[in-house]
Amino acid sequence: MKLAVFGAGAVGRSVVELAGEYGHTVTALADSSGAVVDSSGIDVAATLERKASDGTVGDGDPQTALESEYDVLVEATPTTLGDAQPGFGHAREAFARDRDVVLANKGPVAERYDELRALERESEGSLLFEATVGGAIPVLSTITDVGTENVTAVRGVLNGTANFVLSRMATEGLSYEHVLAEAQDLGVAEADPSFDVDGTDAALKCAILANVLFDGGYTLADADVSGIRDLPGSALELAAEDGWTIRLVGEVSPNGVSAAPRLIPENGTLAVSGTRNIVQFETQHAGQLNISGRGAGGDETATAVLADVSRLEREM
Amino acid sequence: MKLAVFGAGAVGRSVVELAGEYGHTVTALADSSGAVVDSSGIDVAATLERKASDGTVGDGDPQTALESEYDVLVEATPTTLGDAQPGFGHAREAFARDRDVVLANKGPVAERYDELRALERESEGSLLFEATVGGAIPVLSTITDVGTENVTAVRGVLNGTANFVLSRMATEGLSYEHVLAEAQDLGVAEADPSFDVDGTDAALKCAILANVLFDGGYTLADADVSGIRDLPGSALELAAEDGWTIRLVGEVSPNGVSAAPRLIPENGTLAVSGTRNIVQFETQHAGQLNISGRGAGGDETATAVLADVSRLEREM
Repeated sequence: MKLAVFGAGAVGRSVVELAGEYGHTVTALADSSGAVVDSSGIDVAATLERKASDGTVGDGDPQTALESEYDVLVEATPTTLGDAQPGFGHAREAFARDRDVVLANKGPVAERYDELRALERESEGSLLFEATVGGAIPVLSTITDVGTENVTAVRGVLNGTANFVLSRMATEGLSYEHVLAEAQDLGVAEADPSFDVDGTDAALKCAILANVLFDGGYTLADADVSGIRDLPGSALELAAEDGWTIRLVGEVSPNGVSAAPRLIPENGTLAVSGTRNIVQFETQHAGQLNISGRGAGGDETATAVLADVSRLEREM
Repeated sequence: MKLAVFGAGAVGRSVVELAGEYGHTVTALADSSGAVVDSSGIDVAATLERKASDGTVGDGDPQTALESEYDVLVEATPTTLGDAQPGFGHAREAFARDRDVVLANKGPVAERYDELRALERESEGSLLFEATVGGAIPVLSTITDVGTENVTAVRGVLNGTANFVLSRMATEGLSYEHVLAEAQDLGVAEADPSFDVDGTDAALKCAILANVLFDGGYTLADADVSGIRDLPGSALELAAEDGWTIRLVGEVSPNGVSAAPRLIPENGTLAVSGTRNIVQFETQHAGQLNISGRGAGGDETATAVLADVSRLEREM
């Protein structure tokens, strides 16, 4: 398949680097700085080198990438809230041209799901977005496999940064501030960690899951969200005395959508440590399924993007 | 899709009961005792009632089911070794008629994989067999998602009966014989438990995984197999002293295929308890993925069968 990739951050770069291994060709790469387009395949190494040295992927106008020849638009620009731009607009243009759309960007499916599905219905193109929930973990394809109506609830640890902080606080008895600084040093937390530690990222993933399970109608505003910023170390100590620990758990069920710190059994399935994620599915006929793995990272998320591209190819 | 279901054991019965929920129609059900065929859909309730009371699904010759009108043949007769009959023959007849084949029966893909793929290549029909490994756990679809070449090894607890016995021995300090008798009372182990406790079932699943990962060439004979029958309770006690436990672990890697009791960390990911299964994937670009869930059971396995049927429908 020919891919036009939007976004040259960690995920976009990994997608263009790995696409060839999966038998696909990158015919365009664009970000806010510029674009490079070549219908026979861009020079991946040279383009990424230029991005690293000059800060731009190429001299082209990003619009030329949207108008170029491709089968699938891969949207990997940063997640934005509210209008979910520019990601939403890229997806809209691709659908208008009857192309498929694969999202790594959570914004369009968390904030404007119903509009996006309406655009998909009017298009020959299809929408997939496995990479938006749980990185390398096959969350959405498992829901498709088991059958949407057969999944009664989904919960899980969906943010690796928050989980790193909480599991270090629990095992080392350190304060939130101490562990956060450590996480920032290690590159696990960003300079402004709000998106992760306030629960926004986990809640966006839950809004996406709710849209998938209940056929749309959800945005971030529908989620009950609380973060881990004000969680005292003493809460973790108290929990540990009785064999419990605390994790930031996202949950989607007919009772609602939430992302908040929860008490869970210390050796239980949900108590993954470090930056790992875990997703737990309650099903009607297949019991409980648990999937854990790396929930973030360029190559991990790119693997989910390329799984979607391969799926589109098989279902063509 | 129209389904012709072969086998009226726990899995076959669940498939015919749940097919309607997934939007499919059962047009034939056959087992060694007879067959019922109705191109507009069999009367599921009446057929299963008759099977329960008279021991037969219907007066028809099973051959009439093979020759009937259907889109997908679902093979759920008991797994047999060596020639893998009658399952293999059913699949061959379906492919000769250009129909799709979905297996719950492990025999044909563990013992005669290369022949089956050759028949598939000559046919318009396609072969899927998610239900043969890990029941409700989406093992093969995860390999497809991640990309076969990207998966470097798979290991896991693949037999619920053996795992029930080992985890009870470890937690209760009971002998193998004691726990086995208990498992038989609970219906977790069969009267003749050899297939499970000798590692054969886990090894068949590993042979199937090896065929998928390495594009064929494997049978049960290629696996190093040892069971749990002679494992003394003292081995589990010794292991526990150092924080380890023992599980029957199946493993597939470029180094070979095996199913044998292994020492694993007591609180580690592989140490699932009771009849649960877990599958661990090592991948090149997506790190380690773990999926746990119910590895057996009629409804659980039927869910995997029906996921395959839906996949065939999407990819048509």
